[in-house]
Amino acid sequence: MRIAGLSEASGVSISTLKYYLREGLLHPGDARAVNQAEYGEGHVRRVRLIRALLELGKLQLAEIRRVLAAVDDEGVAIHDAFGVAQDAMVPARDRDSPEYRRAFVAVEEFVRRHGMRVRQDAQVRGMLADALVAMWSGGWDLDLRTFDASMPRILAEAGQELEGVPDDDRAVQMEVTVIGTIAYEVALAALRRMALEHASAERFALSALSGSAHGT
Amino acid sequence: MRIAGLSEASGVSISTLKYYLREGLLHPGDARAVNQAEYGEGHVRRVRLIRALLELGKLQLAEIRRVLAAVDDEGVAIHDAFGVAQDAMVPARDRDSPEYRRAFVAVEEFVRRHGMRVRQDAQVRGMLADALVAMWSGGWDLDLRTFDASMPRILAEAGQELEGVPDDDRAVQMEVTVIGTIAYEVALAALRRMALEHASAERFALSALSGSAHGT
Repeated sequence: MRIAGLSEASGVSISTLKYYLREGLLHPGDARAVNQAEYGEGHVRRVRLIRALLELGKLQLAEIRRVLAAVDDEGVAIHDAFGVAQDAMVPARDRDSPEYRRAFVAVEEFVRRHGMRVRQDAQVRGMLADALVAMWSGGWDLDLRTFDASMPRILAEAGQELEGVPDDDRAVQMEVTVIGTIAYEVALAALRRMALEHASAERFALSALSGSAHGT
Repeated sequence: MRIAGLSEASGVSISTLKYYLREGLLHPGDARAVNQAEYGEGHVRRVRLIRALLELGKLQLAEIRRVLAAVDDEGVAIHDAFGVAQDAMVPARDRDSPEYRRAFVAVEEFVRRHGMRVRQDAQVRGMLADALVAMWSGGWDLDLRTFDASMPRILAEAGQELEGVPDDDRAVQMEVTVIGTIAYEVALAALRRMALEHASAERFALSALSGSAHGT
């Protein structure tokens, strides 16, 4: 298909596609003639992946480039590529406060307690520690032991989710896994926010007026 | 305290604090003398809230301003303010594809099915629909019925979480709720990513070499 067809198939405007091409996020199409390139299904999938990372994952361009490099590098085994993509999905941050170090120790204990195979230098450890520090600084005295009871369920769900990844070619497996990671956690966050809005309506909107304005 | 004290108490550099002041995110301190302002605990809490929204929530400045306006407007009842803050935490997006409309209908049915008090125009509905569209376009045939079994648990947890909000003044309640929303979902996303890395190690990293390189 031409670039107009790629635009239609992916729901992304031609000018945005050209921007992705210029930024090196999207592979060039096969050159057919001067100013004519042919795009295929791989391009459609790639555009969807970029959109998910940009709009749902809110990643920066440099982070997206790292994720895509991991997706593309056929020389890297899929589990290692998955680790690189996972790391790129965690924004780099300055982490050297005493609170952060305390949180990081709690994360290490948590990972060990649940026997999880998470790389020692995986960025997701810092992501969890960041969230802990934010909770503490915001007045929540959260202990990771709170999650001990739910972790076996989360592990079982992740195992099932990964079984849903097709035994397909490596590029498809990587793309499906990355989109699944990002989109599924946005979905879970949305469910939680809905539940919080419901709980807030139950707790704070007791008057008939508020009730009718906010009930469904 | 002076601005140097605020910097120390919040872990944010003086130049960043000045930036927050210029952008109107942080209220000016009480003027004591020319070039001297006094800051208090409210300022420390506000700086922590801004950091959580910026760094964990990855919100844009305009979105953060809307959240803070809801936190500050004492004339708005807390449940309504919570709704405004919730809406501001969902990035605005162009949503008019047929897939989006199909996803939105699925979200409406889901909210109704679980009897949730979620405003008809709550942005979180669009957030869930976005995630669904991304899953579909990424090759996951996800149906919201998948979440039917876990929704009662998510609702119960949200109720408990809201009980943890102190019966304090309105500003503290709003700040605690907003930080809790953002930080808790980052924590849950991190737990899920760890579980996925573990599952990937179990599925894809079967060789002794990968196993020893990635096990904890």
